[in-house]
Parts: sequence; C-alpha cells; structure tokens
Amino acid sequence: MPDRILRLQHVEVRVPDLELCTAYYTEVLGLIETARDVRDGVDRVFLKCWDEQEHHSVVLRQAPTYGLDHMSFKVADAADLDHFTDRLEAASVPVKRFAARELGPGWGAAIRFEAPSGHLVELVHGMERVGNMLPMTNPPPRPQDLVGIAPPRLDHVFVMAEDVEAFTAFFTELLEFRLTEQILANDGHQLATFLERSHTPHDVAVITGPNGGLHHFAFWMDDWNGIRDAADTLAYHGVQIDVAPTRHGVTRGYTTYFFDPVGNRNELFTGGYWVDPDFEPITWTEEEMGRAIFYYHREVNERFFTVHS
Amino acid sequence: MPDRILRLQHVEVRVPDLELCTAYYTEVLGLIETARDVRDGVDRVFLKCWDEQEHHSVVLRQAPTYGLDHMSFKVADAADLDHFTDRLEAASVPVKRFAARELGPGWGAAIRFEAPSGHLVELVHGMERVGNMLPMTNPPPRPQDLVGIAPPRLDHVFVMAEDVEAFTAFFTELLEFRLTEQILANDGHQLATFLERSHTPHDVAVITGPNGGLHHFAFWMDDWNGIRDAADTLAYHGVQIDVAPTRHGVTRGYTTYFFDPVGNRNELFTGGYWVDPDFEPITWTEEEMGRAIFYYHREVNERFFTVHS
Amino acid sequence: MPDRILRLQHVEVRVPDLELCTAYYTEVLGLIETARDVRDGVDRVFLKCWDEQEHHSVVLRQAPTYGLDHMSFKVADAADLDHFTDRLEAASVPVKRFAARELGPGWGAAIRFEAPSGHLVELVHGMERVGNMLPMTNPPPRPQDLVGIAPPRLDHVFVMAEDVEAFTAFFTELLEFRLTEQILANDGHQLATFLERSHTPHDVAVITGPNGGLHHFAFWMDDWNGIRDAADTLAYHGVQIDVAPTRHGVTRGYTTYFFDPVGNRNELFTGGYWVDPDFEPITWTEEEMGRAIFYYHREVNERFFTVHS
Amino acid sequence: MPDRILRLQHVEVRVPDLELCTAYYTEVLGLIETARDVRDGVDRVFLKCWDEQEHHSVVLRQAPTYGLDHMSFKVADAADLDHFTDRLEAASVPVKRFAARELGPGWGAAIRFEAPSGHLVELVHGMERVGNMLPMTNPPPRPQDLVGIAPPRLDHVFVMAEDVEAFTAFFTELLEFRLTEQILANDGHQLATFLERSHTPHDVAVITGPNGGLHHFAFWMDDWNGIRDAADTLAYHGVQIDVAPTRHGVTRGYTTYFFDPVGNRNELFTGGYWVDPDFEPITWTEEEMGRAIFYYHREVNERFFTVHS
Repeated sequence: MPDRILRLQHVEVRVPDLELCTAYYTEVLGLIETARDVRDGVDRVFLKCWDEQEHHSVVLRQAPTYGLDHMSFKVADAADLDHFTDRLEAASVPVKRFAARELGPGWGAAIRFEAPSGHLVELVHGMERVGNMLPMTNPPPRPQDLVGIAPPRLDHVFVMAEDVEAFTAFFTELLEFRLTEQILANDGHQLATFLERSHTPHDVAVITGPNGGLHHFAFWMDDWNGIRDAADTLAYHGVQIDVAPTRHGVTRGYTTYFFDPVGNRNELFTGGYWVDPDFEPITWTEEEMGRAIFYYHREVNERFFTVHS
Repeated sequence: MPDRILRLQHVEVRVPDLELCTAYYTEVLGLIETARDVRDGVDRVFLKCWDEQEHHSVVLRQAPTYGLDHMSFKVADAADLDHFTDRLEAASVPVKRFAARELGPGWGAAIRFEAPSGHLVELVHGMERVGNMLPMTNPPPRPQDLVGIAPPRLDHVFVMAEDVEAFTAFFTELLEFRLTEQILANDGHQLATFLERSHTPHDVAVITGPNGGLHHFAFWMDDWNGIRDAADTLAYHGVQIDVAPTRHGVTRGYTTYFFDPVGNRNELFTGGYWVDPDFEPITWTEEEMGRAIFYYHREVNERFFTVHS
Repeated sequence: MPDRILRLQHVEVRVPDLELCTAYYTEVLGLIETARDVRDGVDRVFLKCWDEQEHHSVVLRQAPTYGLDHMSFKVADAADLDHFTDRLEAASVPVKRFAARELGPGWGAAIRFEAPSGHLVELVHGMERVGNMLPMTNPPPRPQDLVGIAPPRLDHVFVMAEDVEAFTAFFTELLEFRLTEQILANDGHQLATFLERSHTPHDVAVITGPNGGLHHFAFWMDDWNGIRDAADTLAYHGVQIDVAPTRHGVTRGYTTYFFDPVGNRNELFTGGYWVDPDFEPITWTEEEMGRAIFYYHREVNERFFTVHS
Repeated sequence: MPDRILRLQHVEVRVPDLELCTAYYTEVLGLIETARDVRDGVDRVFLKCWDEQEHHSVVLRQAPTYGLDHMSFKVADAADLDHFTDRLEAASVPVKRFAARELGPGWGAAIRFEAPSGHLVELVHGMERVGNMLPMTNPPPRPQDLVGIAPPRLDHVFVMAEDVEAFTAFFTELLEFRLTEQILANDGHQLATFLERSHTPHDVAVITGPNGGLHHFAFWMDDWNGIRDAADTLAYHGVQIDVAPTRHGVTRGYTTYFFDPVGNRNELFTGGYWVDPDFEPITWTEEEMGRAIFYYHREVNERFFTVHS
C-alpha cells in the first residue's frame, strides 16, 4: 500500500497585523520564528513548533483579511508529486508545479491545486530540515528554554465547505485520504467529515460552511494537563478563549479553542486513537452533533458555526 | 486561637424522587449508602463518601421540591455547642438543641438556628464514626471496588442570599468563619463571599440571590485528571453537565458543575491553596466577575445566576 | 513509498500456568478473552485490548517455561506477504506460509521466519475483525465497564539478541523497519536499537542479551496519570513492580515495568513523538545508557539486564 | 479546642557552599530570595516559595557540614509562645525567648528549645508578611514569570531520632501535635511516626536514625503531573534524583526525592488526605515498611536509611 501523503506539513494563514500576530505566535503560543521573507510584495513570517524538524509549519502572511491562504501536506517521495499531478490532471484538476525554494525560504518542491471547496491545497517534498531544538546525541526530552505554550507540533486543519461530500470525495479519491468519522444529516448527507493519512483521527477535517473557510488549525499537546496549563497561559495573556478545555466526541480528543489576535481560531488538541488503513469509519447522527463536537456539554456554542475565517 | 468549627459535615438536600436520586448518588457519583430512615413521616437516605469517617455527609430527604434542607458543620468539642449557643442567643438568634441520634441514625449532638438569609444551619458533634473503607493497618491508598466517580469527601456548600453582607457577618462574627475572597459591586457592597474554617479557600460561600437558595454543593476530587474522568462518567450516564471542566479565578480551583436528577447542582472541585488564620482576603471587582467565576471563559453562563434551588 | 508493515499485531508468550496468567491478564491488566483453543496438544488463550479491532493481540501459550513464542506484525495488503517472502528467500531466509485460520482462531494468512537472533517472526494479514468495544454510531470515548488497568492497545515488543547489529540489519534491510534511536558502545557497535513502522519511536526494540530472549512487551496508556493509576492497581493486586512510573530518555516515553505471574515482563508505555520516514536517528552513548533507559535515575537496576525470558 | 501551632513555618539548613546552594534553590527549585544577612559572623540567605505570605520558609546557613540547623512552626497567637513556654518549662525543658527581628530579617518573636532527639525546635509568631507574588485584586492563579520547579509552599520536615517514641511523645504531649500514622516494629515500638497540626498527613515526621539527623524537607506540589515535570527539570539540570516520582503508602502521597548540591535531601510532595483532630492513627507493620514508604516498589533503597544529614 503506497504511503505518499504523510501528514499536514504547514498552514499559511492571512493576518492583517503581521507584527502583532508574530508576537502572539512566538511569545504566547511559543512557536519559533525561522525566517522572514518578502516575495511579490507580500511580507511573511515563518514559524515552527519546537519538535518539528522542518523549516516551518505555520506561515503568517500579511493580508487585508484573516483566513487560510493554503494548507500543505508532506509527501514521502519526490515521485509522489508526479503521481498526484497525474491523478489530479486525469480528473481535470489544474496543477501548478514549483521548484524547491521557489515558494519561500526553506520550502520544498511542491504542487498546488484547488479543492472543490475553493481551498488552495499544496503537496510538498524536500522541505529544508532545520532540526528540532534538541541535540542528536543524548538529548533531554524537551528543551528547557521554551516560552509560552510551546506545543511540539502542528496537528491538523479544519476547514469549511458548502459541499462537504465533494470535498471528502476529492480528498479520499484523489489524494488517498481515509475517512475516520463523519457527522450525517438526517437525510444521510455528510455534514462534517474527518480524514487522515497519519494513522490519527484526522489530518484535515471539513464541516458545512462557506467555501474557502477556515474553522481552525490545531497544535498537538502531550496531555490533558498540558491543555489546562495552556489555558492558564492564554487567560493570563488575555487571549480570547472560545472553548475552555473539554473533550470531543469525534476523535475522543481533548481540546481548547481560542483566537489569534486577528481572529483565526487556534486549537490545542491531544488524545485520539490509532487508525489502521482498514479502519471502519464512525458515524455520528445529526441529533448527536452536539455530543460529537463537545462531548461534555452536548451542545455547540453559536460561535462554533458562525465565527470562522 | 480556638478551633471550634472544623469543616462542613454534611448537607441535607430535598429530592422529589428519592429512589432515582439514591441511584444517581450511589451509582454515578459513587457515594455509599449507610442508612435509610423514616422520621416524622419523611423518608431519608444517608450517604457518605468513601474516605469520610463519619456516618453521613449527604442526606437525601423526600420532599415536594428540590433544594437545601440544611447545612451542618462539625465542631471539635462537645463544649463548642454551648459556646455557639451562648454567642447566638446573645445575638438574639434562637437556637434549638438536639441529643445524639435524635435527628437521625448516626447523628451527633447538634444545635440548629437560622442564618439571616433563612438558611437552616446546624453545628454537630459526636457523629457516629463508621470508618473510611480502608483497613487501619497497612491500608492501600484507595479501595479498588468503588463505582462511579467516587469522590473521597464532601468539600463545601454554596448558597444564595438577598443580603450577602448580612450572611457574611453572621458567619464571620458569630460562627468565627474567616473571609478568603469576595466579589465587590462597583458601589463596594459584597456580591459574593467565600468563607472558611478548614484552611482551604471555602467551606461555605454565598452569592446574591433569593434567600434560602442552594447554588450547589461540592465534592473534593484529587486532581484535574480526576475531574475530567468524572466528566466522562457523567456524560456516559447522560447527566446534564452545566459547566465542563474548567478553572475558577476565585479559589484558583478546578471544577465541573452538573445537576442531580431533580435539579440540585453538584460540583466536583479540586485545587485551591492553604489559608492561615491571618490570611488577607482577595477582592474581585464587578467587572471581573466573569473571570472570578470561570477563569478561562471570563463570562458566566446565564444558568449560573438563574438556575438554583 | 510502500507502507507494508503497519505495526505490531500480537505477541504469543509462553506461560507455565495458563489459568493463573489468564486471570492476571484479564482481571488485573484488563484484557478481554476472545477465544480458547487447543491445537497440536497445546492450550492457548486469546486476548485483546479493548480498543483493538482484531481478534487478538496477546496469545498465552501453555508451555514448561516462560518467554516469547513469536512476535507478529500486521501488513497492509495480502500481497505484502508475497513481497516479504521474496525478499527473505532472496536473502536465504526460509519462510513458511500459513492460510487464514490455520494458526488459530481469528488468525489471518501469515508467513513465519526466524530472525538472526533466533526469534520467530510472523507477518500477518486478514485477522478476523471483532471490533473494539464501542458502537459504530455515536460512541462514547471509552467503555464504562472495563476492569483492571485496561490499556487500549498493544504497543511494542522489546527483545534480546547476542548480535544487536545483525538483528537491526535484518529488520531494517529486509523488513523495511526504520531506526529511530540507538545506544552505541564506546567502540561504536550497537548495544540497543529501536525500530519502527508506525511513525512512533518503536514497534520493536532489541538490546544485547541472550538470543531469543524477551525483555518485555508493552501496552499503550493514554497518559502519565493512567500509568500511575495502573501502578496503584498493580500494587493493590500484589503484582511485582519492577520499575515504578518513570521516564525513558530513549523515546521520551513514560513507563512502568512489572511481571506477569510467571515472570514475563510487561510494560505500560505512553508519550513519545511522531516519526517521519526521513527521521534522523538519535544516538545515546554508552556512558549515558543509564539516562537513556531511566531518565530520572540515570542508572539501570540490575534486574533490567539480568531478568528476562 | 485550641489551635496554636498551625503548620511548619521554615527550616534552616546548613550548607557548606552558600552560593552554589542559593543558585540551586532559586534557579532549579525556583524559590525566591528575600534577604541576605550576616549575624554573629554567619552568612545566611533567606528564601520563600512563591505562594507563601511570610518573609521566608527556607534559610540557608553557611556551615562546615550540611544538615538541619532548626525547624520552626508558626503559632496563631503571640500568647501561644507563653503557653508553650509554660508547658515546656513545666516539663523541665529549657526555653529561650527571642524578640521579633532578633533572629534575622523578617523573623517573628520566637521561642526555641531542644527535642529529646537533640533537634533544635522553634515556635514563631509575627513573621514579616511580604505577600505572595500575586495582586490582592483580581489575581491570576499563578505568576507567569516563575523559574524552575517553583513549588507554591513548604510542606513538612522529616527527621531522624534514636528514640522515635520519645520524640513522638514530646511532639504530641508538649506541642499538641497529633499522630496520623506510625510504623511499628514487631515488638511494638515505633520505628517511624507522622505528626500533624495542619489537618494534613504530616507537618513533621521522624524515623529511627541518628539523633539530630535530617532525612529531608518537602515542598508541596499541586499534582502528580507537577511532580513529573519537576523530575524533568531536575534531570535536565543534572540534579541527583534519589527516588523518581512514586507513591508513598504512608500519607498516600506522591513524591520524588533528590539532593541539593551539598547533600541535603529535598522532596516534592502532593496528595494525602484531610485529618480531623479525632483522626484514628493508621498503623504499618514492620513487614510492610517497604510498602509503607514506597508503595509501588515495596522495598526501600539502601540510601533511604543510610544517607541523611
């Protein structure tokens, strides 16, 4: 079984205030700034989580509005870019190819194309490896000089689409993602789906909403205590917490939601389960959507559906 | 310095459906039933937490409506009942005296009187000791056959009063409680106060609301993980969770709120700090009441003020 | 990149007292018994962890001594069995093929062969799927009726070999495992290696010792608190705890070691990190072996090297 | 019931290298330096934990050897010093009286006397209050700029005595401490006892050993996760960890032991239970001493009895 797309590599998000957001992502969230770049007149700041090996996992892009510029997934081999180009073009999806470093510092060779929902999707190979922040010999388990929340890595991205089923088919049929969970409307159509390549509950997920919408992107935390400590840090810094630490029914994961200074929703996530390729998807009914999303409260706050980017 | 009132001994709560509530408190919350009794035509069920030594800490009382029958505090010496009788009567507060076992099985000698808010308050000495559920020699840290959430002990009671200041003065001046924290209105009057005898942030607290009201009573949990596990158990059993695991600003404690089957609000609580008798009270301003109560969300759900018993 | 071996599927361990061990693995460890079988005069009991989908992950085999009968890894496709048969036979490793159910109830089609260390290794496809213990629609995050420790799944196996380098080469070159960490002697040869297929720090590991030796097999736990709760359960039942909850330097994981009633070492493990296929291995020096194995104590108890099966 | 001694106020420990120890206690353990003082030619550094209100809880005293200079307990009222002076002198124990600030900066009025074990014991009242590190209005739950482990407060002291029973009688009969747990030899005499005034399992404890010996002093941590995080910090800084995170049978508490740079043993402790004054003591038998001390390993490392100061 080919193992081409490995996991989410990065998200590039639009921010109207680049300096404010850089301060937030480095000092409160605790990411590490690896580069700054101006290309085609657009200022960008490149960030990584401490345990990631590659050059960046979050790119902040100066823009008039907030939201998602694109999501990028790491492929295992250079040839995987050709493989997916062929599949996409065979399905009449236009594909653009970029050489290494063409898209920015540290960037790998990449292809880009549009999902049916209008989201720009990238597959990338050969990112510059800058190493995590530990030595390769006799490393401690964690650097001691981290600041803020300091999640070890990016986990997943959650977007919105008018046609969840078309988005899901695109990701499963063309990009070889696997469905782990779905929320079905009473008439049987998909309201939300959760898709993976990394043997975890989700690398990308989608819920009914405006095309191109970003619901949130999430960082991995090591455990429930880490999520609570993070909430203390968020509260201390006056960050708007959207949903205090709680549990999802979908993914079984633990979570807290909050907003960056310009309105992009962030999540800290942990938990979940191991997914084999032959995993049989879990289904949630429309009546139980509240429990699917917030397992304890069994109801979804209004912001969950109406506030996004 | 006299150490007379030691801590909250029990709450007696009214329940319209005694059997349903007994099932909930024993099977979901995991308390132990120690006795049943009919006295003056009223059915009651007596419950204790596993690590408590005395006969009961929660009494369920068959009644047409839900709410608090009375709260009872343990005093260290039999003579303390005389001491407080004198103080109360000197302040023109009528006091009733009861012999051991007069008020129910396992009950100690007690005095009862009414707080300015109309709450019935009891002080008790000489409760029957039934032991916790561990041997006195070479005990394991916890019984292995507990069911449900199984908190080790009752922690505090939170009530409502029209005149918070009168309630507070009654408890501090006559009953020798100490103020640890208060929420002040912009005009300086107390909206809520937190009072202790056990060197913890609170044994009893009061917030502005209808006289005689019960906001909730709380059980101690060992840590934040225990609170989350408990939320899983509550959700599994379909218990209505009012507030998912979160943190208080007041007390710094961790919490989850939920309702028993007839509408009495329960809390699981942990955290807090040590209080010396010379502790200087902490003040929260009206603008920060949201953060005082729910530190992460910084706002209080409507139910917090409107749903009580 | 082909993704053939997915993860450890099961271990079959020898136990001189099948009933005693079955009681231990089901009542203390909390696995679920799925079948019993007598084949070729040998009694076996089949067990699974609650969150596993397949028929078994631990097989207890009546035998005069304790130790490892074989370890089995799950492959993604039926054709992967042919692929590895070809590779192994090309390297002059004899391979035996077994049809589904030939090796026992619920068993998939399998190939078996011997590692240079004398360990019997199996690759398996098409295990009977019996489902985890949750419904496929609107599932809670965890069954509520689990007993004992109840880890969600098997994690890895750790064996002993006289020639760690030969074992490692066999697993990496023929079986396509990837090296994540190694402990090197001062002369540069490998004292221990950690190998993965599941993007976690290890699915199988090996340390210098007698050929065919089993050091331990490990179950996944959700977090550090779960490991501590498990230690309470072990202590309560009088299980011999070899190493109380602590942290590894290698894998960064949290751990506790203990023995089943006949002397097979078990581990509970959590933590670790995500491993991409291009992960650069971490090296530990001989001087830091103590810290590599037990990060807090920086020394290894004598039992670690001398007690195995 | 009189509540005179409230809790352990401070320990003064001897350190041959004052600067090295100050660096360790402030940068690794994360205490706050509040003063330095030279008195009678002896250099001392005064430290407090972040959540303590008083001027100091640990005093480092330049001395040729390590060990305990004295332990000090806080009394509630100034008159309590007279009360205990009377009791002690009635028992022919010489008592010295010191005025406020006479013994050092921030010091309260105090009395000092010797326990039968030769330990210097102090009772103190009116320590200078310097406040914890949070504002008195709308405080966050924890300062964000703490360094190192940063326990909120000192918890207890554990000493050694040739005659445990005489030490225990002195503390219970003259100083009004209460016995919570004891380890009894097969002949019935006390090998170790645990004594409290703060309604927790112990404020001071004693085990058989050389008179005047210090086994360890302990800081409170909020939970089991905090203890593990602390162990990471200790290991990172190369601190010698004596006992990695584990559980006591006595007190039910969670613990890790380690040594300061000159050999004084420190502990981080959490857990335990509430103690009423009428608490019936728990007894551990000599055979179960291993489990009493380290509940998981059921055996005590040799260092526990032989390494002390």
